[in-house]
Amino acid sequence: MDFSLTPELKSLQLEVRAFVAEHIIPLEKDARQTAHGPSEDLREELVGLARRAGLLTPHASVELGGRGWTHMQKAIAFEEAGYSTLGPTAMNIHAPDEGNIHLLEVVATPAQKERWLKPMVQGKIRSCFAMTEPAPGAGADPSMMQTTAVKDGDHYVINGDKWFITGADGASFAIIMAKMEDGTATMFLSDMNVPGIEHVRTMDAMDACFTGGHGVLKFTNLRVPASDVLGEVGKGFRYAQVRLAPARLTHCMRWLGQARRAHDIALNYARNRQAFGVQLGAHEGVSFMLADNEIDLHTARLHIWHTAWMLDQGERCNFESSRAKVACSEAEWRVVDRSVQILGGQGVTGETIVSRIFTDMRAFRIYDGPSEVHRFSMGKKMIAGREGH
Amino acid sequence: MDFSLTPELKSLQLEVRAFVAEHIIPLEKDARQTAHGPSEDLREELVGLARRAGLLTPHASVELGGRGWTHMQKAIAFEEAGYSTLGPTAMNIHAPDEGNIHLLEVVATPAQKERWLKPMVQGKIRSCFAMTEPAPGAGADPSMMQTTAVKDGDHYVINGDKWFITGADGASFAIIMAKMEDGTATMFLSDMNVPGIEHVRTMDAMDACFTGGHGVLKFTNLRVPASDVLGEVGKGFRYAQVRLAPARLTHCMRWLGQARRAHDIALNYARNRQAFGVQLGAHEGVSFMLADNEIDLHTARLHIWHTAWMLDQGERCNFESSRAKVACSEAEWRVVDRSVQILGGQGVTGETIVSRIFTDMRAFRIYDGPSEVHRFSMGKKMIAGREGH
Amino acid sequence: MDFSLTPELKSLQLEVRAFVAEHIIPLEKDARQTAHGPSEDLREELVGLARRAGLLTPHASVELGGRGWTHMQKAIAFEEAGYSTLGPTAMNIHAPDEGNIHLLEVVATPAQKERWLKPMVQGKIRSCFAMTEPAPGAGADPSMMQTTAVKDGDHYVINGDKWFITGADGASFAIIMAKMEDGTATMFLSDMNVPGIEHVRTMDAMDACFTGGHGVLKFTNLRVPASDVLGEVGKGFRYAQVRLAPARLTHCMRWLGQARRAHDIALNYARNRQAFGVQLGAHEGVSFMLADNEIDLHTARLHIWHTAWMLDQGERCNFESSRAKVACSEAEWRVVDRSVQILGGQGVTGETIVSRIFTDMRAFRIYDGPSEVHRFSMGKKMIAGREGH
Amino acid sequence: MDFSLTPELKSLQLEVRAFVAEHIIPLEKDARQTAHGPSEDLREELVGLARRAGLLTPHASVELGGRGWTHMQKAIAFEEAGYSTLGPTAMNIHAPDEGNIHLLEVVATPAQKERWLKPMVQGKIRSCFAMTEPAPGAGADPSMMQTTAVKDGDHYVINGDKWFITGADGASFAIIMAKMEDGTATMFLSDMNVPGIEHVRTMDAMDACFTGGHGVLKFTNLRVPASDVLGEVGKGFRYAQVRLAPARLTHCMRWLGQARRAHDIALNYARNRQAFGVQLGAHEGVSFMLADNEIDLHTARLHIWHTAWMLDQGERCNFESSRAKVACSEAEWRVVDRSVQILGGQGVTGETIVSRIFTDMRAFRIYDGPSEVHRFSMGKKMIAGREGH
Repeated sequence: MDFSLTPELKSLQLEVRAFVAEHIIPLEKDARQTAHGPSEDLREELVGLARRAGLLTPHASVELGGRGWTHMQKAIAFEEAGYSTLGPTAMNIHAPDEGNIHLLEVVATPAQKERWLKPMVQGKIRSCFAMTEPAPGAGADPSMMQTTAVKDGDHYVINGDKWFITGADGASFAIIMAKMEDGTATMFLSDMNVPGIEHVRTMDAMDACFTGGHGVLKFTNLRVPASDVLGEVGKGFRYAQVRLAPARLTHCMRWLGQARRAHDIALNYARNRQAFGVQLGAHEGVSFMLADNEIDLHTARLHIWHTAWMLDQGERCNFESSRAKVACSEAEWRVVDRSVQILGGQGVTGETIVSRIFTDMRAFRIYDGPSEVHRFSMGKKMIAGREGH
Repeated sequence: MDFSLTPELKSLQLEVRAFVAEHIIPLEKDARQTAHGPSEDLREELVGLARRAGLLTPHASVELGGRGWTHMQKAIAFEEAGYSTLGPTAMNIHAPDEGNIHLLEVVATPAQKERWLKPMVQGKIRSCFAMTEPAPGAGADPSMMQTTAVKDGDHYVINGDKWFITGADGASFAIIMAKMEDGTATMFLSDMNVPGIEHVRTMDAMDACFTGGHGVLKFTNLRVPASDVLGEVGKGFRYAQVRLAPARLTHCMRWLGQARRAHDIALNYARNRQAFGVQLGAHEGVSFMLADNEIDLHTARLHIWHTAWMLDQGERCNFESSRAKVACSEAEWRVVDRSVQILGGQGVTGETIVSRIFTDMRAFRIYDGPSEVHRFSMGKKMIAGREGH
Repeated sequence: MDFSLTPELKSLQLEVRAFVAEHIIPLEKDARQTAHGPSEDLREELVGLARRAGLLTPHASVELGGRGWTHMQKAIAFEEAGYSTLGPTAMNIHAPDEGNIHLLEVVATPAQKERWLKPMVQGKIRSCFAMTEPAPGAGADPSMMQTTAVKDGDHYVINGDKWFITGADGASFAIIMAKMEDGTATMFLSDMNVPGIEHVRTMDAMDACFTGGHGVLKFTNLRVPASDVLGEVGKGFRYAQVRLAPARLTHCMRWLGQARRAHDIALNYARNRQAFGVQLGAHEGVSFMLADNEIDLHTARLHIWHTAWMLDQGERCNFESSRAKVACSEAEWRVVDRSVQILGGQGVTGETIVSRIFTDMRAFRIYDGPSEVHRFSMGKKMIAGREGH
Repeated sequence: MDFSLTPELKSLQLEVRAFVAEHIIPLEKDARQTAHGPSEDLREELVGLARRAGLLTPHASVELGGRGWTHMQKAIAFEEAGYSTLGPTAMNIHAPDEGNIHLLEVVATPAQKERWLKPMVQGKIRSCFAMTEPAPGAGADPSMMQTTAVKDGDHYVINGDKWFITGADGASFAIIMAKMEDGTATMFLSDMNVPGIEHVRTMDAMDACFTGGHGVLKFTNLRVPASDVLGEVGKGFRYAQVRLAPARLTHCMRWLGQARRAHDIALNYARNRQAFGVQLGAHEGVSFMLADNEIDLHTARLHIWHTAWMLDQGERCNFESSRAKVACSEAEWRVVDRSVQILGGQGVTGETIVSRIFTDMRAFRIYDGPSEVHRFSMGKKMIAGREGH
C-alpha cells in the first residue's frame, strides 16, 4: 500500500496544472462559447495550445502520437485538466472522443486507425458515438435498441433515430450502434457527411461544455461497407462495455477538477466576504460546508485513484467503476451545489464560473448510466454474490 | 381545525388552473424568451391575457383594480399560476412587483400611489427593488449597506452601487434603499430614466424567468425630492421586513406550482417509458422518488397554507416565514432534482420544461435570504426563547 | 381553511399537558421499568393516575366509558401524552391496545365487546395482535401468512408461529390472524391462558416502551369457537386495513411528543452549556440543528393534523396515512438523532431520557410498515393514477 | 501509488479473520455481557484466546511483547478484529487501553512502563483516561477543564470531577488530566485503589462494548508523587493530541469491521427472505441500500488506509484524522442504520447482532470529538489556509 505520487506523477500534475493556469483559464470568458459548447474555432485554438505544450491527446499510445498514459496518470492529469471548463477540450480528452480513441485503439483495423483514429488523435477531427435513442429505443437500457443494420451484399444498411449524440454537430465521423437481425448489436464506423445521415437538430441542453453539443441524428438507408464494421459483427454490446468502464472513470476525473475549482472559488469568497460582523467563513454555517466539500473531494479522489489503479492491474472493473461513478458523481455534485450556496447570489450568475460548472455538471449524475442504474446493477451483483472482489 | 377548501377557494383554484392550462402553457415555447427573461413584448401579451381573464394583479386591493386576495387565496391561486413558468408574469404576481405592490399599498402616499402604484397594478409598467449591493455592501446581511443618502435642501442625494436588481432593465421606477448619516436606512422612489441612475449591465443569471433579468445599477448624485421618500425617513429596514415575510411566502407558492409541474411530467414519463423489460415506474428506484416527491410537495403545501393562514390572522410571521421558506425551498428543490433524474437525458435538455424549472429554481434557496441565514435567524430566536409561538 | 385550535382543543391540550407534567414525568425514573417495558405493576399505577384524571382510554366511545375523541382530538392529546415515555401507557392509548380497541368497537359483537373490550377500555386487561410471523411467514407482506385456521365443526383449529407480538407477555387475550383454506384470512379472538397457546419467549428488543415487550407465540391445535371469530370469516385482511390507517397515525402523534421532548431537552442544554468560549447554542453548528428540528417537528405536526382531519371527514386515508407515516417517522427520527448529537456524551447515556427515546424510536421506521413498503405502495398507486385525491 | 496488499498484509488479514471467526464470534452470545460491557471474567477468557493465538496487544512494540504493527497493519487487522463486537476486547486493542498503550510507549519513563505499561500490554490489567468532565467542565472543548493539580512539596494534589471515563470500573490505574495554576494541563498516572479516588457510579450508556462501562470519578485531595507525572508538566494538551489522532483512526478501523458485519448479515437476509412474491433483495428499495452500503464501506476503508499510510510516513495528521473521523463515523453509521432497516423487525431485536452494533455505534459520532467539532476545526484551518496538504 503506497499513496505517494511518484516523482513522475508529481511532475505530471504540476505540468498540467501550470498549462491550465497559464494558457486555458484566461480563455474561459472567450466569447466563442455558445449554449451548444465551444465553437469549432475556439476548439482549434485550444487544441493548438495543448499541442504546443505537448499535452494533446496524451492518453493515446506513443505510436499514435500520444503519451500512452496509464489510468493512474490519467487520474492525476485529467483532474488538473478539469480545473478549467475548457481544459479537457484543449487536451482532447473530453467525451466522446476520449473514449472513442480508447475504443478504436483496442478494436479498429490498421486501415480504420489510419483513416479515423490518427487525425482524431492529432486533434484535427472530432467524432461522435451514436448509441442513445429516443423512446421507445435504447436509453439507460441499451437492450432496447431500435436502430437496425441489415446485411445487403458486402454492405450493411442502417435505419433508425439517435439522440443525445454528444459532439454530433461538426463531427467528422460516427461510431454507430445498431441491432442485427439475430438480436445482437454491431458497431459501425461512418463519415458523417454521407447520404443516409441527417443531423436533424442540436438539442437545448443544460450543459455547454461539449463542442458540437448534443445532436439528433436520423439514419435512412445508410450504407456502410463491411470493411467499416468496428471489430466483429455482433459484439457491439461487449465493446460498449470495453469503452464504458474507463470512460466512466475519466468523467469522474475531469469533474473532480471542476468540483475542486468551484470549491476553491467558494473558499476564497468565504475568506474575503464579510457578513453579520465577521468574515463569512467564520460562520460555522459556511465553514461546515467547506469541511464537507473537503471530505467529498477527498472521497472522490480516493475512489478514482483506487479504480484507476485496478484498471492498470488489468481488471475489468465493471462493478468498481459503477461504484466509483455513483460515489464521485454524487460527491462532486454536492461540492458544487454547496459552493453555489456559499457564493450566494454570485453563485447563480456568471460573476464566477461556478454557475457554469453547476449547470454543466448536473447531467453527470445521468450520463454513462444514471446513479439508479448503477445501484441497480451493483445490487444485483451483490445479491448474486458476483461483485467480484 | 379545518383543511377544507371553501367553495370560493375551490372555484378560484379551478379558475386559475384553467386559465394557465388554456392560455399560458401554450406560450411556453414562445421564442420571445431570452436568457434574461421574457421580452417586454411577450410580457405585455401575457398580461393582456390575464387582464381579459380578470386575473391581472389579483392580490392588489379592489380599490386599485385588483381582487384583494387574502394570503390564503394567494396560496391557492399562486400555486396554480406557478404551474407554468410564465403564469406569474402573466398575472403580474411575480417578484419584485408582487412585493412592491404590497409595500406601496401599505406605505405609499396617495400621490405616490397615483403616480407609480396604479399603472403597476394595471400591468402597464414594471418596478425594481434596489437593495442588494456588491461586496463589501449589503448582501444577506442588509446592515452592511454602502449606498448613502444625504439631505440637501428638500432633496436627498443618493450615491452607491446595487446589483442583483431583479427586473431593472425596462423597469419604470425603483424603490431604493440607502443608508442615512445616522446609520438608519430609508426607502426612496425614483423613476429610472433620470440623471443619476445608470443601468450598467444585466447579469448572466442561471434563471431566466424574470422580465428584465437581474441588473447592475449605479447611482451618481441621484437627486430625489423629499416627497418621494417612501414612508418615513429612517424606517427602511422596518419596511423591508414588512415586504419580506409575505414576499418570501409568495415565492414558496409560485415555486410549489413549478415543482408540481416538474413532478407531473416525470410521473407521466415513468408511466409511459419502458426500461429493463418493464414500465420505468415499476422500478422502485423510480417509484420511491415519485413517492418522495409526493411527500415533499404535500409538506411544502402544508407549510404554505399554515403560514398564509397565520398572516391572515394578522401575525407578522417573521419566524414562521423563515421556517416555511427553508422547508419549501428545499423540499421543492428536491422534487425538481428528482424529476430531472427520473427523466434521465431528457431532464437535462429542453425536451421538457423541467430543465428550465431546474435552472430557474436553484436561486430560490438563496433569494430572499439563503437557507443558512434563515436557520441562523431561527436558531438565534429559539435559543433566546423568542420564536414567538 | 382554519388552523386555529378550537377552545375545546386548546383546553384538551392543556389538560393532557398538565397531567403528563405533574403525574407521569415524575415516574419516568421508576425502577419498575425493564428491558421489556414497564412492569404490569407500574402500568397499573399509571393507569390509575389517568383514571383519576379522567384521561383513561379517552379515544373509546362514551358508551364504553371513554371520551369518544375524534381523530383531531387524538392528534392534539396524543402528542401531549407522548411527551413522556410513560404517557401513552398511562392513558391506555399505546399500541397495540389503542388500535385493538378501535377495531373491536367497529367489528366485535356485543358479547365480544362485553367480554374483552369493556375491561380493556377500563385498563384492567391488556391484549395483543398476533399477525406477524417469522420467515418464511407474514412480515411486511401480510399475504405470506403461514398460520392456518381449519374449520372443525363449530370450532376453528389454529396452528402456526407468530413473533414480534407486542404486549404478548401478560396480555389477557389475543386477536389472531390466520389463513383459511381458500387463501383468505380471518381474525379470531382468544384468551391467552388456554391450551394451544404457548408464549415461547420475549424477544430482546431495542425499544422498552411497551408493557409485555414483544413476544413469540406458538399455536398448536388452538380451538376457537365460531362465536369468537372477529367480524366475518375471510375478511381478516380488510379489517387489518381498518385497524392500520388510524393506528399508523396515532403512532405518528405519540412519537411527535417524544421528539418534541428530546428537542426541548437539547434546546435547554444548548442554552446552558458553554463550549469554545461561548454558549453552545451560539454555535451555528448547533443552532442550525435546532432550526432543523423545529422545521421537522412542524412538518410532522402538519401531516398529522391534515390526515386526522381527513379521517374525521370519513376518508379511508390509505394513501394519506402512508404518506404521513413516512414523513413523520423520518422527520421525528431526525429530530431525536440531532438532539442526541447536540447533547454529546449525555445524549448517549441515561443522564437524560433522550437516549431512551432514541432507542425506543428506531423501530418506528419499521413498525406498521417500513418506510420502504409505504413508498412502494404509494409509488404503485401514483403510477396507476389511484392515489385518490 | 499502489493499492495492493503486500503478502504480509494479506496474511495478517487472513490470520485475524480466522481467529475472530473461529474463537471470538462463538462467544458473542455469552451471558457474561452486561449493560456495562463484558464482565472482567469474560474479558480474561477473550484475552487468553488472543494470547494463545499470538494476537494479544499486537500494536505494542516487540520489546514490550507486542508485534509492533504499523498504522497500515492496524488498518487491516483492526477492521478484522472489529468484525466481532468482542474482537477488540480480545486482542486488547480497544479504547481506552489501545490509545493509552500508545501514549505510554511514547511518553512514559522506564519505571512507569515497568509498573503500568507492561502488565497492560500483557492484558493483565486495564486502564482509564480521565479527561472529560461534567458541565461546566471539559467536554468537546478540553480548555474548559476544572480539575486542578496543585504542587505540594514533591507531590501534586488533585481535585475535581470526571465522567464518561471509559473502563473506569475495574481499571487498575488512570491517566488523569488536570489543570495547573498557570492554565496549562498536566497528565498524571495513579493507581485507582488509592485514597482520593472515588468511583461514584457507572453511567447507563447506550453502548455496551467497553469492559467497565463509562464511570463517574471524584478526586478529593488525591496525592500524586512528582515521579508519576506522565511526561513533562504543562504538556498535557500536547500529549492529548499525540494520543488523539491515531486513537481516532483506530476507532474508524474497528467500527468499519462492525459496519461490514451488519452489512453482511443484512445482505444474507436479503438473499434468503421473500417479500411480495420475490426475493427481498430483488426489490430495488432493498438492493439500492445494499449498493449504498458498499459505497460507504469502501469510502471508509479508503479514508482509513490513506490516513494510516500518512501516519506511517511520520505525518501528524491532525487535519486528516479529523477528516477521516467525520467521513468514517458517518459512513459507517449509515451502513448500520440501513442494515437495521433491511432486516426489518429483526433489525431492532436481539435476533441478530445488528441491533447491538447499532446501539453501540451511535456514540462514535460523538466520542473523540463530535462530527461538529471536527467540521469546526477543519473549517477554521481551511479558512486560515492551514489545512497543511
